[in-house]
Amino acid sequence: MSKVRVAAFSVSLDGFGAGPRQDLKNPLGVRGTEPHEWFFQTEVFKKRQGQSGNAQIDDLVRRASGRRGVDNDLAERSFENIGAWILGRNMFGPIRGPWKDDSWRGWWGANPPFHTPVFVLTHFERDPLMMEGGTVFSFVTDGIESALAKAKDAAQGKEVRIGGGVSVIRQYLAAGVIDEMHLAFAPVLLGEGEHLFSGINLHALGFAPTETLMGENAFHVVLRK
Amino acid sequence: MSKVRVAAFSVSLDGFGAGPRQDLKNPLGVRGTEPHEWFFQTEVFKKRQGQSGNAQIDDLVRRASGRRGVDNDLAERSFENIGAWILGRNMFGPIRGPWKDDSWRGWWGANPPFHTPVFVLTHFERDPLMMEGGTVFSFVTDGIESALAKAKDAAQGKEVRIGGGVSVIRQYLAAGVIDEMHLAFAPVLLGEGEHLFSGINLHALGFAPTETLMGENAFHVVLRK
Repeated sequence: MSKVRVAAFSVSLDGFGAGPRQDLKNPLGVRGTEPHEWFFQTEVFKKRQGQSGNAQIDDLVRRASGRRGVDNDLAERSFENIGAWILGRNMFGPIRGPWKDDSWRGWWGANPPFHTPVFVLTHFERDPLMMEGGTVFSFVTDGIESALAKAKDAAQGKEVRIGGGVSVIRQYLAAGVIDEMHLAFAPVLLGEGEHLFSGINLHALGFAPTETLMGENAFHVVLRK
Repeated sequence: MSKVRVAAFSVSLDGFGAGPRQDLKNPLGVRGTEPHEWFFQTEVFKKRQGQSGNAQIDDLVRRASGRRGVDNDLAERSFENIGAWILGRNMFGPIRGPWKDDSWRGWWGANPPFHTPVFVLTHFERDPLMMEGGTVFSFVTDGIESALAKAKDAAQGKEVRIGGGVSVIRQYLAAGVIDEMHLAFAPVLLGEGEHLFSGINLHALGFAPTETLMGENAFHVVLRK
């Protein structure tokens, strides 16, 4: 059985995984990049994220220090042994409603950082997208269980990473299918946005912290069942 | 003007400052001591907390390792320059409704760890209690503003510490009168209980993290306006 995990998922001290009012200019919502700052400074980010065409992301890559250390080790680990990804539609892009055409190909440019099959949850059908570097976006319209079954199949024994966003993680948590979550608590207060835990009892779901590590720019916690 | 601060306040990773179902056996609610474990291991706790008569607290003191280090430094700092405390009634004791008699004198035994005036918020009048070591419990029945005015007066230029619990901190946050909060995030998931931040926008209130420190058993964050 493929393990299902959330990894390198950034949250603010007050528990928000994304800021409010996401749009093309703010892919992660207003101030939503701040909890991810630790990741943007890693060598992993600098190496994996190519030219995207998105002004905010390309600016992040330009500013990236490509640093090694604890944060980078955990970023590395988050990509290890992953055979497939699941993403929510809002993480794939800012478009709402039916796909007007095939022009939107994700935030990440021609060669996205996944290099595996990626299953995008959406209510609107669309043909798969073959990208450079082995990333294939498939669009799943029949629910989270179907997407997980497809991802496990595609992962061929490797692990499935639930990439987010917050709403998708919350749905898979509620379904009880996530085995492990690595969260990176960033020294940031968002105050509003999408809350990762609110109304979810992680203790009752069987999670407990099994590892804590202080990185250069985040406090890392691994929760396991 | 006396600075008003929250200090060494323990929260779980999921943001709970106390567990559910507080009673005489569980002064901090079910599993509510777990986020405080870092504090119980400090030299400060071992030295300040005498025999209390409460089985759970006395057991904690017996088990205390009295360790020095980052956690202990922050515990020390939390008591420095404090001229008065404010506590909620539930933090003072498990009694609800009118005081039946004067027999309840707090959780901490004859010589409580405060050694200053302590103002206890309650709806029911009661005469002040003089304890050993300079702690005087006064009972304030006319609201949080009145308690703060009294505490500032009593502090004589030193700082006022809002000791908790969660509900009292939330009320003073909403009133906009807290200048600084040192929170200790413990590697614990409570899942339920009293949430410190829920529905409160700390960013909008003007707080930002100004200091982060990894202790032996907790991740410390100082929020300032």
